[in-house]
Amino acid sequence: MSADTTRKLFLSDNAASVHPKLWEAMRAADEPDSPYDGDAVSQRLDAAFADLFGRECRVLWVATGTAANCLALSAMVPPHGGVVCHREAHIEMDEGGAPGFYLHGAKLMLAGGESAKLTPDTIRAVIDPIRDDVHQVQPHAISITQASEYGCSYNPSEIAAIAALAKERGLGLHMDGARFANACAFLGGSASDAAGEVDALSFGFVKNGGMSAEAIVFFDQGLADVALYRRKRAGHLQSKGRYLAAQILAMLGDDLWLHNARSANAAAQEIASVAQGRLMHPVEANEIFLRCTPEEREALRKQGFDFYDWGDDAARLVTAWNTPQEHASALANAIAGL
Amino acid sequence: MSADTTRKLFLSDNAASVHPKLWEAMRAADEPDSPYDGDAVSQRLDAAFADLFGRECRVLWVATGTAANCLALSAMVPPHGGVVCHREAHIEMDEGGAPGFYLHGAKLMLAGGESAKLTPDTIRAVIDPIRDDVHQVQPHAISITQASEYGCSYNPSEIAAIAALAKERGLGLHMDGARFANACAFLGGSASDAAGEVDALSFGFVKNGGMSAEAIVFFDQGLADVALYRRKRAGHLQSKGRYLAAQILAMLGDDLWLHNARSANAAAQEIASVAQGRLMHPVEANEIFLRCTPEEREALRKQGFDFYDWGDDAARLVTAWNTPQEHASALANAIAGL
Amino acid sequence: MSADTTRKLFLSDNAASVHPKLWEAMRAADEPDSPYDGDAVSQRLDAAFADLFGRECRVLWVATGTAANCLALSAMVPPHGGVVCHREAHIEMDEGGAPGFYLHGAKLMLAGGESAKLTPDTIRAVIDPIRDDVHQVQPHAISITQASEYGCSYNPSEIAAIAALAKERGLGLHMDGARFANACAFLGGSASDAAGEVDALSFGFVKNGGMSAEAIVFFDQGLADVALYRRKRAGHLQSKGRYLAAQILAMLGDDLWLHNARSANAAAQEIASVAQGRLMHPVEANEIFLRCTPEEREALRKQGFDFYDWGDDAARLVTAWNTPQEHASALANAIAGL
Amino acid sequence: MSADTTRKLFLSDNAASVHPKLWEAMRAADEPDSPYDGDAVSQRLDAAFADLFGRECRVLWVATGTAANCLALSAMVPPHGGVVCHREAHIEMDEGGAPGFYLHGAKLMLAGGESAKLTPDTIRAVIDPIRDDVHQVQPHAISITQASEYGCSYNPSEIAAIAALAKERGLGLHMDGARFANACAFLGGSASDAAGEVDALSFGFVKNGGMSAEAIVFFDQGLADVALYRRKRAGHLQSKGRYLAAQILAMLGDDLWLHNARSANAAAQEIASVAQGRLMHPVEANEIFLRCTPEEREALRKQGFDFYDWGDDAARLVTAWNTPQEHASALANAIAGL
Repeated sequence: MSADTTRKLFLSDNAASVHPKLWEAMRAADEPDSPYDGDAVSQRLDAAFADLFGRECRVLWVATGTAANCLALSAMVPPHGGVVCHREAHIEMDEGGAPGFYLHGAKLMLAGGESAKLTPDTIRAVIDPIRDDVHQVQPHAISITQASEYGCSYNPSEIAAIAALAKERGLGLHMDGARFANACAFLGGSASDAAGEVDALSFGFVKNGGMSAEAIVFFDQGLADVALYRRKRAGHLQSKGRYLAAQILAMLGDDLWLHNARSANAAAQEIASVAQGRLMHPVEANEIFLRCTPEEREALRKQGFDFYDWGDDAARLVTAWNTPQEHASALANAIAGL
Repeated sequence: MSADTTRKLFLSDNAASVHPKLWEAMRAADEPDSPYDGDAVSQRLDAAFADLFGRECRVLWVATGTAANCLALSAMVPPHGGVVCHREAHIEMDEGGAPGFYLHGAKLMLAGGESAKLTPDTIRAVIDPIRDDVHQVQPHAISITQASEYGCSYNPSEIAAIAALAKERGLGLHMDGARFANACAFLGGSASDAAGEVDALSFGFVKNGGMSAEAIVFFDQGLADVALYRRKRAGHLQSKGRYLAAQILAMLGDDLWLHNARSANAAAQEIASVAQGRLMHPVEANEIFLRCTPEEREALRKQGFDFYDWGDDAARLVTAWNTPQEHASALANAIAGL
Repeated sequence: MSADTTRKLFLSDNAASVHPKLWEAMRAADEPDSPYDGDAVSQRLDAAFADLFGRECRVLWVATGTAANCLALSAMVPPHGGVVCHREAHIEMDEGGAPGFYLHGAKLMLAGGESAKLTPDTIRAVIDPIRDDVHQVQPHAISITQASEYGCSYNPSEIAAIAALAKERGLGLHMDGARFANACAFLGGSASDAAGEVDALSFGFVKNGGMSAEAIVFFDQGLADVALYRRKRAGHLQSKGRYLAAQILAMLGDDLWLHNARSANAAAQEIASVAQGRLMHPVEANEIFLRCTPEEREALRKQGFDFYDWGDDAARLVTAWNTPQEHASALANAIAGL
Repeated sequence: MSADTTRKLFLSDNAASVHPKLWEAMRAADEPDSPYDGDAVSQRLDAAFADLFGRECRVLWVATGTAANCLALSAMVPPHGGVVCHREAHIEMDEGGAPGFYLHGAKLMLAGGESAKLTPDTIRAVIDPIRDDVHQVQPHAISITQASEYGCSYNPSEIAAIAALAKERGLGLHMDGARFANACAFLGGSASDAAGEVDALSFGFVKNGGMSAEAIVFFDQGLADVALYRRKRAGHLQSKGRYLAAQILAMLGDDLWLHNARSANAAAQEIASVAQGRLMHPVEANEIFLRCTPEEREALRKQGFDFYDWGDDAARLVTAWNTPQEHASALANAIAGL
């Protein structure tokens, strides 16, 4: 794809530009400081997230969501264990087998659920039939995605129900928050509510205006002790980590993360508002899965909109922190006119 | 460590500031483009390095040297195999067991050699006694470091001798080039000469004015086919990879990489020139290992110099691309005055 | 379970007694010989299986079917790859995650198919949607089970169709033959026909009157070169391997393996013949999956028959090489009388 | 090697014949029973070893010493950790990289010590220089070999000193007891004294008259919970495990294990008694490392003795449970006559 700036892009949020405040923050971190995560910026992360979530936590930066998810899970699950996740989960579908690598062959146990959201029932349907013997892999953790792979958000009571099941069965609980900000914005803005009682959260920034930094937030701090070693062992401990920490702190400052997400969500809502009959899933973040024919997609593309096909009969439209208001309005109009 | 700008820093090159041209290049890449490595900048890497080395190659960016080394080796060595490296090699001493992770338990086979450089003899001393049976791990590759962990450079004939041995024994040959630029500058400036006939090179930029990008250069292109999958699987395929590619291309442009390395090397030479009697190793890059007593180190620190102890009786002094000329001169004077 | 010899056992073939000829053969091997697989008995395996299959092969003994399956696959599939198997396959359901261990996190890709048998269509349904990019695990092999987990046998044309697909897609083909003998007996007795053009076969003996020996038969001999190292690395190279080789050769001698399997199959057929309306799957080996109520199962158990429940509404009945004729007849009568 | 019964074999104890009582015990176990380790014989192991050691333990059978060592260690050491062992340890030298496999890339940390025995000092020399940071692999366990690879036994106070260090540093302690029986016989016969306060012991039987069974004895019972899953996952859970359990119980009955070891040791002592000036190591088990020239070795072989060269200037002579008295005497005479 050439960088055709005359096109109106709804391909993904994962390649959008970096927010100016992050550039500023990175430049401000450009003085020499201690390497790895010993620098002054990285040292501020734990406290900043503790403030945000209202509880103690330990935070590790990494460059990608795949690394965040897999490092978090690797601290929860032994090689002979398993992780329950949705069959459409990113860790199952789109991480190139990274969980198999980071978890040393542990098994992903695939469950169902509307709009790529697990429920206690769909989890139980997977784990209850597992015989408690050595011939079958035993579950050790559950991983949920907030917002889900279909752009739907778990509300606090849904998370609480899953957390209760996890606790009852002695399972760790991980949240893939590649679009945590969008979920949080949708749910009303409380990070604590949007995370619930998870043990570890992959808090994404790259899709929300970041360049190269995600945060793994460990509420179960013992997990962080393990993950620190695993991060280095995975080659994810950057020597100039201060540039990652600077991005993250800039995001937390003045709730930029939430502001960015609200912008993306608002654009998505504008589009969704004209497309109710076509929506495959509720729009609860910044993704729209739209039923439309190949001809309709062609028509939209001719009007300058770029997006991905989603199978034969649908399109995926993703808004970003910097989607121009006029692009969203134009797309809404175009859809209304199909 | 606070960012005490009144101190004169010889701690490491791995936390130095980012070169202004890289900031420019990253900003120039801040338009939306295809994610991962599908962007226009990333797509130019293969050709740029082919120009530099004068032979075909395929190039993958990653964020760290540890990832570069281990991904390269993971494409050469099966889980049941082994890699010959120096017993002081970074992959053995300082990567937190990353080779064990990336190579799925393959074995590092530790050899000796002056100044952390392998020779055909020290390699043979390790591999010749290995019985050719299933009870002993068999070597599949050799890894050398250019410049070595003690700041010494392999000259072309030394590399050629090792490459010949590798070929004779059917072993892959990898070069850890975390300070490849410094070695190349020392050897006269030909990237091709400084790399020799290796199959894969971890070409470092972070220690040479980069922010977060290293290049794995595969001269054996079949290895790249595997490494592409392994990079994603390791969570090292960043979605906004264009910022990494931009750093690298900026480094290659106008030979900035070589210019930076020459600056660092020159500073090191100035210091070394007054310290010949104290040098533990020849200074052939940007590191100086200096015999000195605790009292002498204390004296240097009192004069404002920061550096690491190297055991009880020595210090490691590292210059960087941006070590101020006056700092190097001051340190030379201080050492001369000990 | 106590060894209640008054019970009539249809629990499994995997705990049956060892055939007397195997005891004889092991005792005959009780003279000192070279350790591992250097002994005279082990050295005869390749030729014995080449005779049986009518083509060159290399053969490794191991103690369990799980080890046989996973070692064979580990030679075909890189850690970043995948294996297509049936969702009810033993490697997926009953090996405690051994494929994840032996294949270093490679992925099992679960396909459907009647009676736990794959077809080209069910395989394509899994692999065709996989995007050819690094974000998704790519398939490297197919594993089929002969006879299947529901006691059904692939006929030669079914295997040929799968082998053709494997070849077309560049995938390895493995056969889990834990009950290969029973399949072969059902199909008419030709080992070559029952194996077809697979690259590697786990040829089971333990369920067929063996004690502790299975054979991995590599028709693709390059795979054996790798598996030899992997076997040792997995702790499966026994120092007194001659006792395993002796079991296997005794099985091949006078077609004992086929004779035993025919006995087991005949018992199964006698039972099946009275139960046509209750059969969940065709009886094409030595397993019968019988629809029956809890009350009916209770009635059978009261008559002295032991077997496993299969969910709420069925039973699994397995015959063995030494199932007494009168036990099979008695069970047939009991079922007929339900 | 052909089974030349006219030769006098001192090659190894690992290929000797199986003791008659074990054959009897296996035949006695030839009735159907529950599969895996659910049978009556396997169920008696915990109590039998608790009696022997005078403390609670849990016991798993496996087929090989390599599997025993690596499963035990895999329960103690996370993938990012390390195991201190002697540089001549079997796990380092002769297990084909199995620790790398079973421990998922954890690192063997090689220490010195006379006669392949570790001491607190040699252990500290390895672990004390390890920086307590994420860049270096941290030790999690120590593995010692009883008797050592050079046939030397740790006495109780030596084990106690190492155990104290392990406890002080929070490290697990494993004992490779491939020749534990010989060490125990040498030390006076108390299994408890010969094991000391280790957390897990690989108790070898195969070299002592067994066929295919070793015991992993877990004194730290939590480790057994993990190892049970790992054994299955490694394909080492045999379905007819009762034949392994039967071998082990037969060994424990009437102290057959100790009786066999005493026979082997006595033969070794007879040989050693004439060779004091030639011994490379004290003979404290059933191995003799004898300085001798190639000509002397040739002379011995001409007299009918088979054994392995040990480098250019030595021979390794191993006695077994069934080494004929007259063979030992003949060898002693032959050595005396060199």
